[in-house]
Amino acid sequence: MIFVTPYSCMTPEQLEAAYQAELANYETCKAKKLNLNMARGKPAKAQLDLVSDILNVLQTPEDCFDGTIDSRNYGELAGLPSARAYWADVLDCKPSQIFVGGAASLNMMCDIVSRAFTHGLLHSPRPWCKEEKVKFLCPSPGYDRHFQIGEFYGAELIYIPMTPTGPDMDMVEEYVKDPAVKMIWVVPKYSNPDGIIFSDETIQRFANLKPAAPDFAIIWDNAYCMHEFEGEYVPFPDIISMCEKAGRPDMVFEFASTSKITFAGGGTSCMAASEGNIDYFTGVFGVQMISYDKVNQLRHVKYLKDKAHTLEIMKRHATVMGPKFRCVADILDREIKPLGIAEWKRPTGGYFISLNAMPGTAKRVWNLCKEAGVTMTNAGATFPYGKDPNDSNIRIAPSLPPVAELEQAMEVFTTSLKLAALEKLLNK
Amino acid sequence: MIFVTPYSCMTPEQLEAAYQAELANYETCKAKKLNLNMARGKPAKAQLDLVSDILNVLQTPEDCFDGTIDSRNYGELAGLPSARAYWADVLDCKPSQIFVGGAASLNMMCDIVSRAFTHGLLHSPRPWCKEEKVKFLCPSPGYDRHFQIGEFYGAELIYIPMTPTGPDMDMVEEYVKDPAVKMIWVVPKYSNPDGIIFSDETIQRFANLKPAAPDFAIIWDNAYCMHEFEGEYVPFPDIISMCEKAGRPDMVFEFASTSKITFAGGGTSCMAASEGNIDYFTGVFGVQMISYDKVNQLRHVKYLKDKAHTLEIMKRHATVMGPKFRCVADILDREIKPLGIAEWKRPTGGYFISLNAMPGTAKRVWNLCKEAGVTMTNAGATFPYGKDPNDSNIRIAPSLPPVAELEQAMEVFTTSLKLAALEKLLNK
Repeated sequence: MIFVTPYSCMTPEQLEAAYQAELANYETCKAKKLNLNMARGKPAKAQLDLVSDILNVLQTPEDCFDGTIDSRNYGELAGLPSARAYWADVLDCKPSQIFVGGAASLNMMCDIVSRAFTHGLLHSPRPWCKEEKVKFLCPSPGYDRHFQIGEFYGAELIYIPMTPTGPDMDMVEEYVKDPAVKMIWVVPKYSNPDGIIFSDETIQRFANLKPAAPDFAIIWDNAYCMHEFEGEYVPFPDIISMCEKAGRPDMVFEFASTSKITFAGGGTSCMAASEGNIDYFTGVFGVQMISYDKVNQLRHVKYLKDKAHTLEIMKRHATVMGPKFRCVADILDREIKPLGIAEWKRPTGGYFISLNAMPGTAKRVWNLCKEAGVTMTNAGATFPYGKDPNDSNIRIAPSLPPVAELEQAMEVFTTSLKLAALEKLLNK
Repeated sequence: MIFVTPYSCMTPEQLEAAYQAELANYETCKAKKLNLNMARGKPAKAQLDLVSDILNVLQTPEDCFDGTIDSRNYGELAGLPSARAYWADVLDCKPSQIFVGGAASLNMMCDIVSRAFTHGLLHSPRPWCKEEKVKFLCPSPGYDRHFQIGEFYGAELIYIPMTPTGPDMDMVEEYVKDPAVKMIWVVPKYSNPDGIIFSDETIQRFANLKPAAPDFAIIWDNAYCMHEFEGEYVPFPDIISMCEKAGRPDMVFEFASTSKITFAGGGTSCMAASEGNIDYFTGVFGVQMISYDKVNQLRHVKYLKDKAHTLEIMKRHATVMGPKFRCVADILDREIKPLGIAEWKRPTGGYFISLNAMPGTAKRVWNLCKEAGVTMTNAGATFPYGKDPNDSNIRIAPSLPPVAELEQAMEVFTTSLKLAALEKLLNK
């Protein structure tokens, strides 16, 4: 084993030598003219292939019935009974608390925000567009598409730091005293990108929130609710009944989808909320459509069956995902950890590894990767307005490329991390 | 053949005798305790069954590719290339002018209105929520769900009468001089519910409109673009290129769907518009989703193939639909025409027969039908705010019940029409 000196312990001469070595490594990488992508949490072809049986569960007219309901015809705005029951099983809530959606849960989140601005939520004194100011709390690093929706509707996005147990709840509790604070956006299990599972205490503090705004809403995006790739399924409490017990049953909108269980390009999704919210939004959604695609809902129910069977399928996904995450984490452990220039956590589920590079270098690392043919998520994308206050966080999405490509991409990435750190230390 | 005296030629005694006879008929109908529905344009099970092959066109991973694009994964926000090409073939426009949607075109129409209010359309000086007043033109009788969207967003709905060639274009041309008039909603082919095909002159006058509002939009809901059930396919001009030629390329949003071609509960849809609008809304829709269901898009393309093949499938639908519409029209001809108490048109496509009963009787007819177990579309629903100025129009939707049930339902309906007319004439 070669002993490696952390950059912080090197002399200027050693740093310069390291810099020249990494520059040479980087040029070698560039010469390979790679074209690799670790930017988005896209499932790999191998994952899509392993659920192919879903294509064949509906073959005849008879297959298309959910009891007496013909999934092929109009009706059942809130979703097929079997699909509502399926999601209730997954999220440990009641079928009456489920509205089944289309291929993207994001679309329903956007609809909630859109209708909040034009009409208001269940307890809104007025539509949010009539408020002087609307503020959204954005625990970060977080999901860029969440932040984009808030920005699109003109909400002021407020940065809340993430801790190892979830968002900084002291700050959240303080901020919700402001009646202009109307929403908070979180991914509570295998958070995007940190891969954190919110602690029981954090979840209880969410349920116990007493916001000044009567229509304050938690967007509880449970996108990775069954998405372990290491170890056993981690049970997760039902936030809806917890909010109910704490006295604010209508404060939370939970979302989940099959985008990373069956097909990212043709899955189904759900919104889970109090019966009051489901009734209210069934009225609202009734203006815009007859129902989401019920044939696809039934296809999913027949294929996925229930939570237990879905978890079996997720174990198959884990055989594809696990080695990729291990590959990335192992390379980081080997190449970067001894140098002391970045921090990260080895997640056991979700779709991302979140890395904090030396402050002030994330954008530079992104550019170096780009120039060497490796596309990463934009540096800063995981923060409100795309601005990372420390220019440090980089989201790694290892799911799409095969392991052999990941190794090549990680060589470029680790070389870029080192080079950017050395540039910084040497004021280049 | 029995010679029948029109009610208008009867003496009061004859009317009273007719009233007693119809009252007895009505009681006989009621005693049957029927439970029939002619309220909604739902496809019949026989129609859904005849397209069952679509369930089996995608069976393997290889089937799921559109060229090099994996329909199962994220990407292609505006739709699969083959799906955009399919709709361009159907609507006689360019693939670059197509955005492929989900199970309901209505959802995209609602999104357009929603975003117009919160952000504005391509040429909006400001979001519509910042306008003092927003007015929508509603040619009527029309589609209730169109009007509901306008009402939901607080637009003032303006009634424009329908003529045998389409909306009263003199009125439309006059109204669009008002800059507060921002939209008009029409079903140009087999209009809902009149079954009218807009004349070439009407269509040209639409394209030639010079509205005062720079962001005035025509919602051209071509829901029945291939939906003939009598005779040959009727070609229909491309409104997008016509608006372009007339100098307002961004004035029209056209919509179509497969809800009444494949599955009402699991079809696909499209928006067709200028490249400028498609670019603008691809940006806007990019905030709310990754793409609509592409697996279902590909399933449809592989099954429907192209316009010519789709028209072959529509001929099979016609074998189910044709007899039902003939049944309804024949019964009306036999039972109602001689009495001179209602007017209607025998349509050759679409999903409805629009009947104008004796003014002041439509609501009464609806109630009589309801009490005798036959559900019709709410009287007035085909007008803005659900208010028919003449209380006369009734929309008949014959598609769902089998012919035997239709005959029973029509017996109730015609008896109710007669009874309501006699009540009116006798001031009962």
